[in-house]
Amino acid sequence: MTTPDVSRSPVTVIGLGLMGTALAAALLRDGHPTTVWNRSAGKAADVVAGGAALADSVTEAISASPLVIICVTDYDAVHALLDPEREALAGRVLVNLTTGTSTQARETAEWAAEHGIHYLDGAIMAIPPDIGTAAAMVLYSGPRSAFEPHEGTFAALGTTTYLDADHGLSALYDMALLSIMWGVLNSFLHGAALLGTAGVKATAFAPLANTMIGVVTEYVTAYAPQVDAREYPADDATIAIHLGGIDHLVHESEALGVNAELPRLAKLLVERAVADGHAGSGYAALFEQFTRN
Amino acid sequence: MTTPDVSRSPVTVIGLGLMGTALAAALLRDGHPTTVWNRSAGKAADVVAGGAALADSVTEAISASPLVIICVTDYDAVHALLDPEREALAGRVLVNLTTGTSTQARETAEWAAEHGIHYLDGAIMAIPPDIGTAAAMVLYSGPRSAFEPHEGTFAALGTTTYLDADHGLSALYDMALLSIMWGVLNSFLHGAALLGTAGVKATAFAPLANTMIGVVTEYVTAYAPQVDAREYPADDATIAIHLGGIDHLVHESEALGVNAELPRLAKLLVERAVADGHAGSGYAALFEQFTRN
Repeated sequence: MTTPDVSRSPVTVIGLGLMGTALAAALLRDGHPTTVWNRSAGKAADVVAGGAALADSVTEAISASPLVIICVTDYDAVHALLDPEREALAGRVLVNLTTGTSTQARETAEWAAEHGIHYLDGAIMAIPPDIGTAAAMVLYSGPRSAFEPHEGTFAALGTTTYLDADHGLSALYDMALLSIMWGVLNSFLHGAALLGTAGVKATAFAPLANTMIGVVTEYVTAYAPQVDAREYPADDATIAIHLGGIDHLVHESEALGVNAELPRLAKLLVERAVADGHAGSGYAALFEQFTRN
Repeated sequence: MTTPDVSRSPVTVIGLGLMGTALAAALLRDGHPTTVWNRSAGKAADVVAGGAALADSVTEAISASPLVIICVTDYDAVHALLDPEREALAGRVLVNLTTGTSTQARETAEWAAEHGIHYLDGAIMAIPPDIGTAAAMVLYSGPRSAFEPHEGTFAALGTTTYLDADHGLSALYDMALLSIMWGVLNSFLHGAALLGTAGVKATAFAPLANTMIGVVTEYVTAYAPQVDAREYPADDATIAIHLGGIDHLVHESEALGVNAELPRLAKLLVERAVADGHAGSGYAALFEQFTRN
């Protein structure tokens, strides 16, 4: 059990799932007097053993700290817990690390503003075991005036990135970054399935896959200004050349009995770019396809 | 103009598109007596100025060197050029760096074996300007006895990786690695479109995107042994949790008028994994979906 450091500001954590528990534990390790609340009190045992105070009610938990962090299943759960607590929350900083959409974040920000609650919406780009280490990327959006006084406390949770006053941005970044995670993993698993047909192990493929992933970060850096300018010079290969390669990938996948839906969609997107006059453009021209429903 | 180094073994390069020209230039820089041929001789001007000998015919080009590298548009072009040259090629090492499928590579290997040609199939994971630098990954497959005597020459082209005696593997790796490239780029461009709806620049998104891409390489390393064992413990998040997140991504994309086909396909794959009993498995369980047509 860690003795709370009275020089550290008190923090309340509402919700003790795997992530909430990791957040409370990281705050305790950093010496913050930490008050917790969870629907089922049993889940609090570990952090209470670590020095946290278990509140009897949400109101009591909120009243214990100027900074209240909530991390629960979804925004419906956030509102079910906090809508009755407007008076207790008024004047405090509320940080919502629950996963949701940008619309949910902005709606919650409006609700908070109506009741004088200083609201930050956040997104955790990490798994619970990484919380409290530099590997945990945590994104915040909302008024800088709510963020800055607690920046030191947030540092206890991971690598802090303040995005923007627009409360929707942490949710949008969350989605955009997770989209990259799923995109990388799906193409790795698809590639492993392709190579698996020839008896190649995924563990043999992974190092080359990761080398390639590293190379592509350079393309990302090179393509980003093209996207901002919406001009796509073919500094490396043209969309027409990519189309030939993707067509090969579709054929390989089909011929080897591997799922071909991912390359077929990639081909469709590239064909649309060609139809839009981008045969001679660089790959970043595909951005235009993604901006359309 | 570089003076050929007589201690370096002679090399012939057939096909002087952007890539073939880069290959010949890298060989010349490394001091190899280099003979070139191209359907239109005009494209040879730069490498001839750099010291290459321009052959009058394919036969003459082949006869000049024990090692013949071909890099043309497709395998049809390879066969149109080389099928009449069986006698000239017999006893030499032929390296085909033309992009194609594993089936085309294996068929060409059979043809070569019938005519006593020592055949390697290769794949260049690089853009022409990177040829001759460590950033150019070049993969080779075919008999090690054909690879080893020329390993020093191959080193002049980039970072050399010998894969396997199976001639189909360089084409398969090529496809699997390009699939990763397209997967990363598509999800980055999709994320940039999502964030673009809130006025976020792609250049602001790119550094965080690349941080995330770096994090995912660790997941690739962790998931590869799970794929090989076909056992998928949920060490981080379960497929059920991922499904919730992907559902958010679909809704965000649709609500913001951004193309949602990529997340919809990702959701479909995850839903199938759940239907197969993998709700409680880790994300690597999606491998099973990719092995099926």
